[in-house]
Amino acid sequence: MLDPKTIQDLPTPALVADRDALERNLATMAKALPAARLRPHVKAHKCTALAWRQAELGHRNFTCATVREVEGMAAAGLGDDLLLANEVLDCSRLGVLDAHVTVAVDSEATIEAAVRGGIEQCLIDVNVGLPRCGCAPGDAGRLADLARSRGLEVRGVMGYEGHLMMVEDRAAQKLSTAESMALLLQAHGDVGGELVSAGGTGTYDLNEAASEIQAGSYALMDTAYAKLGLPFELALTVVASVISVSEKWSVADCGLKALAMDHGDPEVDGARVWFCSDEHLTFAPEPALEVGDRIRVKPAHVDPTMAKHEALYLVSGDQVVDRWEIDLRGW
Amino acid sequence: MLDPKTIQDLPTPALVADRDALERNLATMAKALPAARLRPHVKAHKCTALAWRQAELGHRNFTCATVREVEGMAAAGLGDDLLLANEVLDCSRLGVLDAHVTVAVDSEATIEAAVRGGIEQCLIDVNVGLPRCGCAPGDAGRLADLARSRGLEVRGVMGYEGHLMMVEDRAAQKLSTAESMALLLQAHGDVGGELVSAGGTGTYDLNEAASEIQAGSYALMDTAYAKLGLPFELALTVVASVISVSEKWSVADCGLKALAMDHGDPEVDGARVWFCSDEHLTFAPEPALEVGDRIRVKPAHVDPTMAKHEALYLVSGDQVVDRWEIDLRGW
Repeated sequence: MLDPKTIQDLPTPALVADRDALERNLATMAKALPAARLRPHVKAHKCTALAWRQAELGHRNFTCATVREVEGMAAAGLGDDLLLANEVLDCSRLGVLDAHVTVAVDSEATIEAAVRGGIEQCLIDVNVGLPRCGCAPGDAGRLADLARSRGLEVRGVMGYEGHLMMVEDRAAQKLSTAESMALLLQAHGDVGGELVSAGGTGTYDLNEAASEIQAGSYALMDTAYAKLGLPFELALTVVASVISVSEKWSVADCGLKALAMDHGDPEVDGARVWFCSDEHLTFAPEPALEVGDRIRVKPAHVDPTMAKHEALYLVSGDQVVDRWEIDLRGW
Repeated sequence: MLDPKTIQDLPTPALVADRDALERNLATMAKALPAARLRPHVKAHKCTALAWRQAELGHRNFTCATVREVEGMAAAGLGDDLLLANEVLDCSRLGVLDAHVTVAVDSEATIEAAVRGGIEQCLIDVNVGLPRCGCAPGDAGRLADLARSRGLEVRGVMGYEGHLMMVEDRAAQKLSTAESMALLLQAHGDVGGELVSAGGTGTYDLNEAASEIQAGSYALMDTAYAKLGLPFELALTVVASVISVSEKWSVADCGLKALAMDHGDPEVDGARVWFCSDEHLTFAPEPALEVGDRIRVKPAHVDPTMAKHEALYLVSGDQVVDRWEIDLRGW
């Protein structure tokens, strides 16, 4: 028996996932992209307990964004095939892990860092339109040759079409994704290897070029992704207590230290959100609430919201059924 | 000798404070508001090591925003006089502490919560213009009577003029602060007690009504407060590594999980910041940088930036001279 037993007993603010919605999301994705067709991205939840559920549903290969995430996944027994889909200049903590680690490289410096750190496998990271990491598509072959000459196994290419995740017109999104992936396939032709790793929750069903999709947000979702009409439910909320009520507004005890603000304000059903400050949400509920009432606040962006909390409470209805450590935080 | 020894050795992203700038900020404030004239707000840094420096400079009374902050300050031996300047419905973790704890109350429910939790002292929290917590000024006397009838000692009033912190015209700011504080003094007339607790870094030298000022950001500062021309230096940066360089932009390994985004993008000297994603900063430096170079990123908002990191590295020039745990995070 867990203590606390119901949502009303949780110390607030509390990060909460609806277990049933989460399980439906996991099952929907596992059916659409079974086993190795999905390489779940743990940066979206930073929680090895959730990663274990993904593994139990057939996905044994994972994507990570930080060295800490790779370390934590290895320690949790999920090190079969970990892709650090990011450029890293100090791989020394990776080379010593009892896990199968592949890193992304997009330059001579990152190739040398992989070699220096004792990494054996890499993907060539290709820029496919998002102004971030990745080499020019035409440079991928040269980097693959260099990596192989330095003793690395080159497993293929990756390229994240992150600039296309939030396109609301699905036909336009599909077309743009295909154009973006044409760049990746061109690079893959020069690089070789079995992997073409790309995609995310927004394009998981549109990206026909990738051999594996790096989606992560689908498991818990947020209000930004919820607007796209994908078959995934918003499973994540922050439970807060109403601590102050005045004539025109009410105040709950969750603020911008509990909620990611980069995608804008959170949402509360039946209320207008006025603003967040460090530890407060000022909002106007309709009908009025009383001090002590609990509300469910919907974050605008799942990944950085998870990173602000120590634990995720699983609930079924009002019952708290589990508590998962968010154990992949930090760097 | 610390390991890492220089900024170049830090694992990135790393939260860094310039020790000399921090010490100058602490000294400037201790001179302006000595001893109990300042009740430093720990929500701005969440770090008991930094709070100890404030205590060594004469400030033994502190302001907290969360139960966890009060617990951590008590455990660190800084429990002489802790004000939880926030409404709390479950005071059970506070009443058991070996510390002198005062809570803010603004309703019958919060008064009852204090009594139930074994708290002995309170302040009446008064709304002075910021749409957040605090009773109407005219209701403060009634609540003080109620609190006293329930056995609580009422030490006075608090009222945070948070809506005035970022006013750039100092004459206008002073006038508005006086108007706001007139409401608090009216309430204080009805409530009694020795404390009139208010203010923040933006009004620390303008607020002539408060018996004590609750400033916190002055110690480390951020780009928002730096625009106000206060005599406090920007001591806080996030050190990041350049991990990818292309023709038009570069990418560093700190993103919106390392930087608070609620006040907008961070700043980098000599560069235009394009955008942040979870673990990346895309920016255009002038002149160009190389992979492996280190940059100093200036956060827009200090409080939630601190809450994202496990530790604060103190540097003097390029030398790392100390590492402080950010031990008051969470709830």
